[in-house]
Amino acid sequence: MGRVIFSFCLFSVLFFPTLSHGAEMSAATAQCLDCHSGISPGMVSAWKLSRHARVTPGEALKKPERERRISAASLPNDLAGHSIGCAECHTRNPEKHKDTVEHNGFQVHVVVSPEDCATCHPVEAKQYGQNIMSHAYGNLMNNALYRDMTRVINGVQVLTGKQITIRPPTPETEADSCLSCHGTKVEVTGTKARETSMGEMEFPVLAGWPNMGVGRLNPDGSKGSCSSCHTWHQFSIEMARKPHTCSQCHKGPDVPAYAVYQVSKHGNIHESMGKTWNFEAVPWTVGKDFTAPTCASCHVSLVVTEGGEVVAERSHRMNDRLPWRIFGLIYAHAHPKSPDTSIIRNKNDQPLPLTLTGEPAAQFLIDAGEQQQRRQVMQQVCMGCHTQKWVDGYWARFEHTIQTTNEMTLTSTGMMMQAWDNKAATGLAQGGSLTDEAIEKTWAEQWLFFGNSTRFSSAMQGADYGVFANGRWYMAKNIQELWDWMKSTVRRKE
Amino acid sequence: MGRVIFSFCLFSVLFFPTLSHGAEMSAATAQCLDCHSGISPGMVSAWKLSRHARVTPGEALKKPERERRISAASLPNDLAGHSIGCAECHTRNPEKHKDTVEHNGFQVHVVVSPEDCATCHPVEAKQYGQNIMSHAYGNLMNNALYRDMTRVINGVQVLTGKQITIRPPTPETEADSCLSCHGTKVEVTGTKARETSMGEMEFPVLAGWPNMGVGRLNPDGSKGSCSSCHTWHQFSIEMARKPHTCSQCHKGPDVPAYAVYQVSKHGNIHESMGKTWNFEAVPWTVGKDFTAPTCASCHVSLVVTEGGEVVAERSHRMNDRLPWRIFGLIYAHAHPKSPDTSIIRNKNDQPLPLTLTGEPAAQFLIDAGEQQQRRQVMQQVCMGCHTQKWVDGYWARFEHTIQTTNEMTLTSTGMMMQAWDNKAATGLAQGGSLTDEAIEKTWAEQWLFFGNSTRFSSAMQGADYGVFANGRWYMAKNIQELWDWMKSTVRRKE
Amino acid sequence: MGRVIFSFCLFSVLFFPTLSHGAEMSAATAQCLDCHSGISPGMVSAWKLSRHARVTPGEALKKPERERRISAASLPNDLAGHSIGCAECHTRNPEKHKDTVEHNGFQVHVVVSPEDCATCHPVEAKQYGQNIMSHAYGNLMNNALYRDMTRVINGVQVLTGKQITIRPPTPETEADSCLSCHGTKVEVTGTKARETSMGEMEFPVLAGWPNMGVGRLNPDGSKGSCSSCHTWHQFSIEMARKPHTCSQCHKGPDVPAYAVYQVSKHGNIHESMGKTWNFEAVPWTVGKDFTAPTCASCHVSLVVTEGGEVVAERSHRMNDRLPWRIFGLIYAHAHPKSPDTSIIRNKNDQPLPLTLTGEPAAQFLIDAGEQQQRRQVMQQVCMGCHTQKWVDGYWARFEHTIQTTNEMTLTSTGMMMQAWDNKAATGLAQGGSLTDEAIEKTWAEQWLFFGNSTRFSSAMQGADYGVFANGRWYMAKNIQELWDWMKSTVRRKE
Repeated sequence: MGRVIFSFCLFSVLFFPTLSHGAEMSAATAQCLDCHSGISPGMVSAWKLSRHARVTPGEALKKPERERRISAASLPNDLAGHSIGCAECHTRNPEKHKDTVEHNGFQVHVVVSPEDCATCHPVEAKQYGQNIMSHAYGNLMNNALYRDMTRVINGVQVLTGKQITIRPPTPETEADSCLSCHGTKVEVTGTKARETSMGEMEFPVLAGWPNMGVGRLNPDGSKGSCSSCHTWHQFSIEMARKPHTCSQCHKGPDVPAYAVYQVSKHGNIHESMGKTWNFEAVPWTVGKDFTAPTCASCHVSLVVTEGGEVVAERSHRMNDRLPWRIFGLIYAHAHPKSPDTSIIRNKNDQPLPLTLTGEPAAQFLIDAGEQQQRRQVMQQVCMGCHTQKWVDGYWARFEHTIQTTNEMTLTSTGMMMQAWDNKAATGLAQGGSLTDEAIEKTWAEQWLFFGNSTRFSSAMQGADYGVFANGRWYMAKNIQELWDWMKSTVRRKE
Repeated sequence: MGRVIFSFCLFSVLFFPTLSHGAEMSAATAQCLDCHSGISPGMVSAWKLSRHARVTPGEALKKPERERRISAASLPNDLAGHSIGCAECHTRNPEKHKDTVEHNGFQVHVVVSPEDCATCHPVEAKQYGQNIMSHAYGNLMNNALYRDMTRVINGVQVLTGKQITIRPPTPETEADSCLSCHGTKVEVTGTKARETSMGEMEFPVLAGWPNMGVGRLNPDGSKGSCSSCHTWHQFSIEMARKPHTCSQCHKGPDVPAYAVYQVSKHGNIHESMGKTWNFEAVPWTVGKDFTAPTCASCHVSLVVTEGGEVVAERSHRMNDRLPWRIFGLIYAHAHPKSPDTSIIRNKNDQPLPLTLTGEPAAQFLIDAGEQQQRRQVMQQVCMGCHTQKWVDGYWARFEHTIQTTNEMTLTSTGMMMQAWDNKAATGLAQGGSLTDEAIEKTWAEQWLFFGNSTRFSSAMQGADYGVFANGRWYMAKNIQELWDWMKSTVRRKE
Repeated sequence: MGRVIFSFCLFSVLFFPTLSHGAEMSAATAQCLDCHSGISPGMVSAWKLSRHARVTPGEALKKPERERRISAASLPNDLAGHSIGCAECHTRNPEKHKDTVEHNGFQVHVVVSPEDCATCHPVEAKQYGQNIMSHAYGNLMNNALYRDMTRVINGVQVLTGKQITIRPPTPETEADSCLSCHGTKVEVTGTKARETSMGEMEFPVLAGWPNMGVGRLNPDGSKGSCSSCHTWHQFSIEMARKPHTCSQCHKGPDVPAYAVYQVSKHGNIHESMGKTWNFEAVPWTVGKDFTAPTCASCHVSLVVTEGGEVVAERSHRMNDRLPWRIFGLIYAHAHPKSPDTSIIRNKNDQPLPLTLTGEPAAQFLIDAGEQQQRRQVMQQVCMGCHTQKWVDGYWARFEHTIQTTNEMTLTSTGMMMQAWDNKAATGLAQGGSLTDEAIEKTWAEQWLFFGNSTRFSSAMQGADYGVFANGRWYMAKNIQELWDWMKSTVRRKE
C-alpha cells in the first residue's frame, strides 16, 4: 500500500501541478481580470495555469539557489508578496514604454519586453541580450547583402510587357515572412479610439504588431521577446524545453534543426518515451528527469546528475556552447564574437563572415581557443550519456562534414564566379544582386539549403535527413546542374 | 487529502471514460458480435471503446442542449433504448442501399453513409451536405479542366520510339491517388460467393471500395463519409478534434494546413501541452479544455467560454467561417456560393472561379457582405485568446498576402500566356492541356504549391513553412525560371 | 469505490512499471556502476529503467511461452539469477571480440553485438541474420553499382579551372551519410592510453565508431545492431514498437515509410489515440492493446486476438511478410531470396535485381508461390481489423500501383538509354557512372524518390504523400523534363 500511496502522490505532483492553491493576486491584477476574464478568456485561463499565478516571487526567492527560477538578488517591494499577474508585467516600467496608455486608471503597455521580465530574471535577460538571436532583426535588416535577399524573396515581381521588375516588399510582407521569426520593429504610430463594452476607449496603434520574433525591437527600446519560447501567458518551462518550440523557426531547409532532431536517435527517444519525463524540474537531472536530450538540454538548460554534479550551467546566451556557426554564410565558420553581426566586414569589405572564396573575417570571429572552450562545454553535455570515445568519434565526423560541405559550396561558388566574370549572370561586381536570377538562386540553395541541411544532420545525427531529404544528394546534383548551365551558357560565350 | 481525492477522481474521469458500464446492446448487434468478435477483433474492440457502445441515444437526448452530441429532436423507437452497435448502422435504411444483401437473416449493407448517421445527427449531416468537402468527388471529376489535371498526373506515360503518349488513368490509380481524399464512387457491380467459416456466403462486389474520402459517392445516393474524420469504429470526438485527422489530406504542398500548423505557435502549444487537454468535452471551453486551437476549434466546433458564452457555434458546413478560399484556382478568391463548384463558369466559359488573368466569376462567389460576416465569425474565435488589435494586425497581413501571392501567380501566368500565344507551349486555345508539358507543370507549381503554401503559412502563422519550405523563396524562383525559359525558348522564336 | 481502486491500481501498473523492486545485480555489474554511475549518469539511469535491470533471465524463463521475452531454452548458469547489467553484456564472449580489453580486472568490450544478445535471444538473433537489414553494409558496399552511387553522392566535387573532379568519399563521410543507417565496419585499429579519473587507462581505438546502423559489421564478426531499434540502454520494447524508431532511417524520399504512415489513417489513429495503448504487452493483443497498427504490428510483432488466437507470429526476419520489394532497383520486384543481395546478377551481368528494362533476375528472387504465402501472412494481419472485401480491394490497387510506377520508370529509363546510346550522357556501356551527371540524377529521382514514394504511399494508404508531396505529380513531371532535355540535347545530335 505504501507504494500505491507513493505513486499516487507522485501522480498528483506530476499531472496536477496547477491544482495547488494559487498565490494571492494583486488588487490591480484583480481589477484587470474583472473585465478581461470575459473579454479574453483563453488568455486568462492560460495564465491561471502558469507558475506566475501560483507562486509569489517572494516564495520563489526562498528556494535553494540551484532550484531557483528567478535570478534577481532582491525584488521590488510591490512584487514580492503576490502572484505575477496582468498588472505586474503590463504596467512595469511605464515611463520607458512608448506604447504606454492610460487605461482605466492604469498606465498600461501592450508589449511586455525582456526589460520588463528582467525585474525578476535579470541574468537571463542579460545573457539573452548577448545571444545572437536577440539581434536577429538588425543582423538581417542592417546588412545590405542580407536585406537584398529579403528584397528578392519578398518583393512582388511584376511582368510588364516583356520585362520583369521587383516591387520592394511591404512591411506587411516582411512581417509575414522573414521578420516573423527575426522579429519586427514594433512602433507606436498614433492612437485610435475604439468602441468597447466599456464605452469608447483610446488604444495605441502599433506598427509591426503582432509579433513574437526572437529579435523584436520593442517600444521600450529593448530587443527580443521572451515569449518566443516561453509562450504567453502560461510561460511554461516545460514548453520552452520541448523541441516543438524551437521548430517554429528551425524546421525549414535553411535551418532544419528540428527536422533533423526528429530522425535522430535523440528525437526518437523523446518522441517514444518523453511522455513520462519531468520537464518542469529545476535543476534538470539527466537520466532521471529525461533520458535523451531536447534542444534545451544541450543548448540552454542547467543540467545536473543524480549526484548533484553540474553537467552544464544554464545559459540564455545560447552560442556559449557553439564553437561553429554551421549556418553557412556562405560557408560554416567559427562563431561571430559579437551578437551584432551587421558590423562584420570581410577583406573585400562585404558584410559577410567570410569572402566568397571562403577566407574568414577572422577579427570578427572567435579564435581557436574560444572554440575549444565552447567545444568542451558542449562535449560535457554529450558525456552525460556517452563515453569519451563515442564523443571523439562523433566530433571528428562532424567537423569533417563542416569542411567537406564548405568545399562543395566552394565548387558551386567557383562556377558562379566564373559566370559573373563572364557576364552570364550579374553579380556584386556588376552592381547586381547575389540572388535575384534563377541560376543564382540555384547556387544559393547549395549553401542555404543543402550545405546547411547536411551540417545540421551531422551535428545532431539525423543522417536520414542529410542524405536524400535535403542533403548530400542535392549538394552533388547542384554542382552538376550548375555545370550543365555553365556548358550551355558560359562556355558558349567564350 | 481532499485535493488528493479530487485529483484522483478527475484522473478516473479523464483517463478511463471507457470503464463505465456499457449500455445494453440490441439483440441484433449481439448476434453480429457472436461471429465478428472472432472474425474482425480489432473492429469490435475499437467499437467497444466508443461512446456508441456506452451511451444509448435515449440517454444522449436527455442532456442539456449545449452538451448534447446528437441533434435529432426525436429518435426511432428501435434506437432509443440500447447502444449503437453493428446492426443499428449497417441495417439502417436497407431499401435505400444498393449494397444491401441478405446476411444471416439481416438486410446488411457495407457502406454506412451520412444519411444513415443522420438518423441521430441530422443537423450535422445536413450542414456537411452544404460543405464544399461533401462535393469533392464531383468538384474534381465533373470539371473538365481539373479532370484533365488528374489525367496528366495519374495517367501512365509511355515511350514508343521517340514519342510519349499518355494512357488514361485506371479507376484503381484514381482511387489510389486523388480520390483517396476526394472520395470514390462506390458502386455495386454484382455479387460474389465466398467460402467463410460459416459456409459459402454471398457478398456484394463493390467498385471504388475501400474508401473514406470526404466526398465519397455512396451506394445509397448520398455524398461523403463521416468516418473520414470520425474514424470507424471508435468514432471518437477526440480524434476528430485532433489535427492529425486533418493531416491525412491537408499536409502536402497543395494544401499544407497541417504542415503549417505544426510550425505555428498554436501547433507548438498543442504539441507541447495538449496531453492534459480535454478533447471530449461538449461544449468545448476555451482556456479550460484547451489553451490553443486545433483545426476543429477554429473551423468546426462549438466553443464556449468558462462563463458559458458562445464563442462559435458548431458547424459541419466548415466554409461558414471562411471568407476566402486560399486554395488558388489559380488565384485565391472569395469563397464559392455553392458547394458544387463544377457549375462555375468564368467569363471565358472555363470552369474556373476566375479567368487566367484573375478576374473573378463574381456571380458564383460570395459577395463582400457575406465575406465580412464570415470574417467576423472567425475573428470571434481569434478573440477568445487575442485582443482586437492583435486580430486586426494579423488579418491585415493575411489579406495582404492573399493579394501579393495572387500577383506573383499573375506574373507567372502572364509569361505562360505569352508562351501559349507564341506556340512555345500548347495551351487551351490550341486545344491542349494546361498542365501536361514540363514548363506548364513548373507554372502550375507557382499557384498549386508555392502560392497556396505561402497563403496557408500566413493564415495560420507558420512563417517558417512559408519562407523557405515551399513558399516565397520558390515563388520568386519560379518566376525567374520561367523567365529564363522564356528567354531561351519564346524570345528566340520572335 | 471499487472502480476507483481498480483504476488506481491500473494506473500504477500502466504508468509506473519501473517502480517495482529491481532484480539483484551481479557483483561485476555493481563494480561497473561504482564508477560509471558518476561517469556516464544518463546511460546508467536509462538502464535502471530497463526490464534488464528489473527481471532476471531465470524469472523471464518461467513465463508461459507466448508471454516470454527470451527465446533461449536454457541459460548460462551465471546469468539466470541476477539482472542483466553492464558486465553481463560487455564481458560476454570476450574471446570472440577483437575490441576486448582488460579494464579494472574485467575483459570488457565496447560493441555489444547480436551474437552477445543471442545468449538469451537466439531465435531473434538468428531471424535477424536472415533479414535483409542485417546485410545492409555489404549489400551497399559490395555492389559495384550501388557503391558508385555512394561515390557520386558522398565524394567531394572539386572545381579546378574549368574541370570538375570527384574526390572519393572518406570513411568519415560515409559513416556520416549512407553508413549511418546501413551500418559501418567497426574495427579495432590499435589501443590508446587516456587519462581518466582513475589514472591512465588503455582503451581500444575503433574505426567506424560510433554507429548503430542495422547492418553494422561488429568486431566479433557478427552483423547488425540490435540497438538500432532496441535503443541502448533502456532496450524498451515500447520504443521498438513505436513508429518513431523506424523513422530514423525510413522517412526520406527514398524510403518514406514513416512520412507516409503519418498521413495514413493508421498513423492518425496512433497519433491521436495511442497515448492510452499498451506498448509493452507480450503477446500484443489487437483491439485491446492497440487499435491501429504501428510498423511493428504489421512487420515484426507477435499479434494475437483477445480470444488468444495468433494473428501473426513474431519475426525478426522482417521480409517474411513482404511479397514485394517496393524499393525500386530500379523497378519494384519480387523480394530477393537471399538477404545478401550483392550476389545478384541480372542477365546483363549487372548486380541489379532486374535489367534496366525491367526484366527480373528471377533465379535470385522469390517465386510466385512464395510471394503468395507472404501475401497471405500479411493479409492475415490486415484482417485483424478489416474484412476480406476491404483487403482484396486494397491489395488490387497496391499491386496495380507497383505495375504503373514500374511503367513510369521504364519510360524515363527508355529516354535515358537513348541518351546513353546517343552519347548525350555517359552510361555503363561507355564505362561511365549511372548517376554522376545532372540528367542522370534527374532520372534516378524517378525511381529512387518518386516511384518509391508512390509505392510506399499506396502500400500504407497515405495518399496525400503520394500525389503531390513526392509522388505522382513528380513522376509525371520527371518524364516531361527528360523529354524536354531529349528534345534540346539528344534530338539535336540526330
